[in-house]
Amino acid sequence: MKPRLNVVTIGVADLQKSRQFYMDAFGWMPAKGSSDEIVFFSHGGIIFSLYPMDLLAEDAGLPAARSGFSGISLGMMQATREDVDATFRKALECGGKSLIEPRDTFWGGYDCYFTDPDGHHWEIAWASICEYDAQGSLIMEE
Amino acid sequence: MKPRLNVVTIGVADLQKSRQFYMDAFGWMPAKGSSDEIVFFSHGGIIFSLYPMDLLAEDAGLPAARSGFSGISLGMMQATREDVDATFRKALECGGKSLIEPRDTFWGGYDCYFTDPDGHHWEIAWASICEYDAQGSLIMEE
Repeated sequence: MKPRLNVVTIGVADLQKSRQFYMDAFGWMPAKGSSDEIVFFSHGGIIFSLYPMDLLAEDAGLPAARSGFSGISLGMMQATREDVDATFRKALECGGKSLIEPRDTFWGGYDCYFTDPDGHHWEIAWASICEYDAQGSLIMEE
Repeated sequence: MKPRLNVVTIGVADLQKSRQFYMDAFGWMPAKGSSDEIVFFSHGGIIFSLYPMDLLAEDAGLPAARSGFSGISLGMMQATREDVDATFRKALECGGKSLIEPRDTFWGGYDCYFTDPDGHHWEIAWASICEYDAQGSLIMEE
């Protein structure tokens, strides 16, 4: 079995609120196994899950106190520049907070940043060089 | 195009050191496009990348100061309980720091936690109910 990143779990203060944010802002549907205690979104072989912040820290044997930069950026690619604009607007309508408005980037793409209800920040980007399969997965050499 | 998590970028203090950690501890090889400025690992449709912490924060318009819990957990599944043990030992040999030694979990699996050179924490887990494809991607209903 090839070792790879299989799961990304973000800690949340209010599971119902965050579930609704990701459903409304990104159009995602919770996967089988989701409950009032944990929410799974299945993304072509990877699980993105929502879990209470205090329990997530406890499971890792860490204090839950957090402040400042998380040090991790989550990214979602889009098919067009217009889709970046639309996703940005939609996220703000759904309660996301703007960090960087849509802009041309130094690497030749187009992106924006906003935070979800818990301050986790997302980069939404378009890049002319990227290709995707039917599941939205990036097609690239392993 | 189906919207999904495409990219996970972690901020690092020393790009060379962190690249070596992920190559040695997990056996990953940097993908095409990696350079002295950014490192990409391609994982069946998702990119896991390493980028200098200060530049990552700057790109998102955030101060780079960070302390406490990141609020995000990265997870890698393994085929057997013994693989969890082996990956845990290997990670510590490569400079990872133990948070939770391999243990049976309350949800019926087996896992451990450790941190990478920048304190990003990884959960390595085995779960009897999970199935994987040849790329190590989880097989689950979308």
